[in-house]
Amino acid sequence: MTDPVDPVDPVDLTARLIRCPSVTPEEGGALDLLEAELSAAGFTCTRVDRGGVANLFARWGPKGNVRTFGFNGHTDVVPAGDAAAWTHDPFGGEIADGILWGRGATDMKSGVAAFAAAAADFVRDAPPGDGAVVLAITGDEEGDAVDGTRALLDWMGETGERMSVCVVGEPTCPERMGEMIKIGRRGSMTAYFVAQGVQGHSAYPHRAKNPVQAMAKLCDRLAGQVLDEGTEYFDPSTLAVTTIDTGNPANNVIPAACRATVNIRFNDAHDSAGLTAWLRGAADQVAEETGVAIEMTVKVSGESFLTPPGELSDLVAGVVEAETGVAPELSTTGGTSDARFVKDHCPVVEFGLVGKTMHKVDENVPVVQIETLKRVYRRLLEAYFA
Amino acid sequence: MTDPVDPVDPVDLTARLIRCPSVTPEEGGALDLLEAELSAAGFTCTRVDRGGVANLFARWGPKGNVRTFGFNGHTDVVPAGDAAAWTHDPFGGEIADGILWGRGATDMKSGVAAFAAAAADFVRDAPPGDGAVVLAITGDEEGDAVDGTRALLDWMGETGERMSVCVVGEPTCPERMGEMIKIGRRGSMTAYFVAQGVQGHSAYPHRAKNPVQAMAKLCDRLAGQVLDEGTEYFDPSTLAVTTIDTGNPANNVIPAACRATVNIRFNDAHDSAGLTAWLRGAADQVAEETGVAIEMTVKVSGESFLTPPGELSDLVAGVVEAETGVAPELSTTGGTSDARFVKDHCPVVEFGLVGKTMHKVDENVPVVQIETLKRVYRRLLEAYFA
Repeated sequence: MTDPVDPVDPVDLTARLIRCPSVTPEEGGALDLLEAELSAAGFTCTRVDRGGVANLFARWGPKGNVRTFGFNGHTDVVPAGDAAAWTHDPFGGEIADGILWGRGATDMKSGVAAFAAAAADFVRDAPPGDGAVVLAITGDEEGDAVDGTRALLDWMGETGERMSVCVVGEPTCPERMGEMIKIGRRGSMTAYFVAQGVQGHSAYPHRAKNPVQAMAKLCDRLAGQVLDEGTEYFDPSTLAVTTIDTGNPANNVIPAACRATVNIRFNDAHDSAGLTAWLRGAADQVAEETGVAIEMTVKVSGESFLTPPGELSDLVAGVVEAETGVAPELSTTGGTSDARFVKDHCPVVEFGLVGKTMHKVDENVPVVQIETLKRVYRRLLEAYFA
Repeated sequence: MTDPVDPVDPVDLTARLIRCPSVTPEEGGALDLLEAELSAAGFTCTRVDRGGVANLFARWGPKGNVRTFGFNGHTDVVPAGDAAAWTHDPFGGEIADGILWGRGATDMKSGVAAFAAAAADFVRDAPPGDGAVVLAITGDEEGDAVDGTRALLDWMGETGERMSVCVVGEPTCPERMGEMIKIGRRGSMTAYFVAQGVQGHSAYPHRAKNPVQAMAKLCDRLAGQVLDEGTEYFDPSTLAVTTIDTGNPANNVIPAACRATVNIRFNDAHDSAGLTAWLRGAADQVAEETGVAIEMTVKVSGESFLTPPGELSDLVAGVVEAETGVAPELSTTGGTSDARFVKDHCPVVEFGLVGKTMHKVDENVPVVQIETLKRVYRRLLEAYFA
């Protein structure tokens, strides 16, 4: 027989997590703290550290083929940036006038703390029969994300751990608590072009092959292309030329090479293979017209994905509305998140608090939002296992 | 009564000039040496040094409103570059198997030495009655050229020195001695563009104003414009985008600014004011279409100019053909030269030796070419004053 455990205070836990300087890829004590709390609440914890990245898997209930509610989040944070510009210590976890300040206050130590507190309450007060609750928490979401959630999911597959559904606790609400659930994300890919021409004197351009002009032509064409007009659940796909660089200081020389980077955010009308083929074709066309060779390397951050509106999104939306009084929009806006990995494992939606200050100086969160989020998660667990 | 002076050997003088390390803006002893030779030959020499640049003016005969044959050239040279790549010391002035090696062997210590030797012979053997022979030699042709020939010409204007006609001794022959005289040059100007947009996240390009894409559009349009088809004495004008630079390492960020440089070589169908207005209009058009502000700074290296075929070019062409057996083409090809300044002072043409190795590693000249060039210049003086 064990002593009863004190309930976890999600606000205090968020503050203590903020005091752990877990800037990617540093663990900073954040996962150690979380592991201690969850272990005390009866969770079986396993550290799944990979490639210098710390990750934590925690389960309450049996392993394997049972109804399992999963939560995914991260304790790593982006750097504070100019610490002197902050009005509060970015790693102080100070609370003043009902506001908790610090890096990770919204993205997303608060989300992790809220779910940990909700889950601890839930398994203590109303344990889910033969179901299970798991948390897959990574220390590498803000970085390359190679050894983070992806590694955790691989490990789960290898060891027979599973989730029936998963909620990712990223901040999802633009302005008001409760207003948005994410049911998918656009994909993201980046193409790196190198135009290789023939150097020459700028007075004799016909003797050279100008890679700068070839790159300008290619980038102008790509930027002018409408990829689509949006789909049922998605905004239009977008393309941005983020940099063109040559580094030629001599105005009487046509240089040999020029580089450019193009980032595409694409909806479910596309996949990265199709877009890669389109980019390659456009580059080949410019190469043929100009005589300048154009190499391309593509890095795919994630394909687009969608958990179509249905059982899981209905469940989350109902709970959010019941708890906050706001009927959430089902959205696919925003950048990428680790949901892009989870979607290959089980249905996934994202819900968290208001993300306005994420990644900014003076990141902060009203403590009432954390408490609300904890209640949403608690109610979600109850509803899921009802 | 003075002792007779030894004739100046143009090959030996070139070699001695090469041994003066007169990389722009260093005088390197080159003008001192020349001044000593010309003074010994009876020329009145004046150093016209301006802004750290050394220049030399030398006159034989009376100053002022008399028939005056002028010569313009420079003793400064471009750097040796990778000295280890040279097969001979770039500042050694070595002669091997009839070839003189070193920086400035063609561009243009040889030209200066050949004219100095020719002029010394001429004024000794067949002085030009009440005419005059002047040399305006600068140490700043390869650099900014602000304190070089331009300063010399200004000084000449202020002090009553003049030239009736002028030959610039730059290497003008592409392959064979005697094959080309330059009677003009295209103008050259450079436009520096800065596109100033609004930074943003690459996932939301509609919230940003992308300066990279605006610059790509502008550069593609400019590069696609045919400026003209050439004129009676000129090749077509050309435009080259020589660099586009952004320096944005983050593929999820649309940057705030992007820069580009465009160099134009223009014939007598244009002037820099008209081209500046055209560039400004194109930039304004792109700015209007994209919402990205585009600043432009223009630097004009020189307007196009032409000494129309006539008395001076006939004289030079006749002498060149008589001495080399080759009928020279009257051309306006090539980059800029200090003739762009001289043309405001008097009719000017350019004739010198074969320029193939200028600015390259292992710059060299067959000694017979220097001797031929000296004979051409000597004969030109005789013909002019005949």
